[in-house]
Amino acid sequence: MLLGKVVGTLVASRKEETLEGLIFLVVRQIGADGEETGAYVVANDAVGAGVGEVVLYAQGSSARQTESTRDRPCDAVIMAIVDTWEVAGTEIYRKE
Amino acid sequence: MLLGKVVGTLVASRKEETLEGLIFLVVRQIGADGEETGAYVVANDAVGAGVGEVVLYAQGSSARQTESTRDRPCDAVIMAIVDTWEVAGTEIYRKE
Amino acid sequence: MLLGKVVGTLVASRKEETLEGLIFLVVRQIGADGEETGAYVVANDAVGAGVGEVVLYAQGSSARQTESTRDRPCDAVIMAIVDTWEVAGTEIYRKE
Amino acid sequence: MLLGKVVGTLVASRKEETLEGLIFLVVRQIGADGEETGAYVVANDAVGAGVGEVVLYAQGSSARQTESTRDRPCDAVIMAIVDTWEVAGTEIYRKE
Amino acid sequence: MLLGKVVGTLVASRKEETLEGLIFLVVRQIGADGEETGAYVVANDAVGAGVGEVVLYAQGSSARQTESTRDRPCDAVIMAIVDTWEVAGTEIYRKE
Repeated sequence: MLLGKVVGTLVASRKEETLEGLIFLVVRQIGADGEETGAYVVANDAVGAGVGEVVLYAQGSSARQTESTRDRPCDAVIMAIVDTWEVAGTEIYRKE
Repeated sequence: MLLGKVVGTLVASRKEETLEGLIFLVVRQIGADGEETGAYVVANDAVGAGVGEVVLYAQGSSARQTESTRDRPCDAVIMAIVDTWEVAGTEIYRKE
Repeated sequence: MLLGKVVGTLVASRKEETLEGLIFLVVRQIGADGEETGAYVVANDAVGAGVGEVVLYAQGSSARQTESTRDRPCDAVIMAIVDTWEVAGTEIYRKE
Repeated sequence: MLLGKVVGTLVASRKEETLEGLIFLVVRQIGADGEETGAYVVANDAVGAGVGEVVLYAQGSSARQTESTRDRPCDAVIMAIVDTWEVAGTEIYRKE
Repeated sequence: MLLGKVVGTLVASRKEETLEGLIFLVVRQIGADGEETGAYVVANDAVGAGVGEVVLYAQGSSARQTESTRDRPCDAVIMAIVDTWEVAGTEIYRKE
């Protein structure tokens, strides 16, 4: 999984039928140091994440292992909202 | 999923039999800021996208989770046409 | 899928048994502009491609969705020979 | 698989239900020479690895082939703790 | 598949149970021109490859399509030992 920050939303009215009702969020990848890396992904949301939140996302076939994404053409899913992480004993991030 | 712009079409008369009838589109990847990244993919189309449209595409095994691509040697599929997306409250793109 | 040019052949007499009889081709990746990107892959061939031809190849589990590669440890397959593609209305390549 | 060093822990109380009880570790990728490469991953742990340990991690669908991660939205798992490796006859690392 | 040179071995006594008995080899990726690219992978061995040999390896779920790696958390497998390959009519490598 990789860390990301939800920075925006995306609307697509014309899509594969099985995606009806799914939310698409724009996620900027962040590194273990908490800084943006420049990469991004558009992910479906399995946990009710909102813009501004720091999340974990899974990619590939693992992105289809949630109730909302199973058997759908989804290759990235937000499967957790991050409370905190630390590196080398230092807290890098804590959800407010 | 990643954002892309459909920039062209591809014809391949000799191909794995199960691909008969599928459309191949040349898609340039675009970033969350709407700019081209330099990467591209040739994707099958599950939603009737046309040249010039901004789309979402899924890769890997997830590309086979549409009616038209199931069980076929396809690793990239356009599964949505983008209406609009915004980042940090700013609209980056809106379909005309 | 990505575009590639078949540039060579590979022989491996000692291999996983299920690969017996499969052809291995060296493929240089080419971009949407027709230029080599510097990347390459060794792919199995599902369509009778020859050295010098421009092809499409699929990667990952999708590479196993052809009759010749199913259930085999193959992660790249040539699944189409390209006749022509165009970008922004300009023909980039046409098979002679 | 890739080599990594476990450098931290991550807490996510809100997550896909099936991930309940799984441990998330922050892993910095290291090269064959033992040096950090700059890449990282957040991985689930199948072998009781701790901060500071050098591990092997598997990605993609292979990350779901452990008892603890099966059928879960997990795309990276620590599946081994490294004792030692050598390159060209030179020991690069040995667990103390 | 990609080309690699087996440069070393790795020992991991504590690992997911299903990996018991599998051999882990350190493989440096090589390009179509025979030169090392700087990338590497730790792969399981399905064909009895030894240090110094030039091999083909498959990644992702395809790495689990060998008798020894099936259903195991393995994302890279050596599935062939290379005898020779040529590019543009020139032999790049021949096993001695």
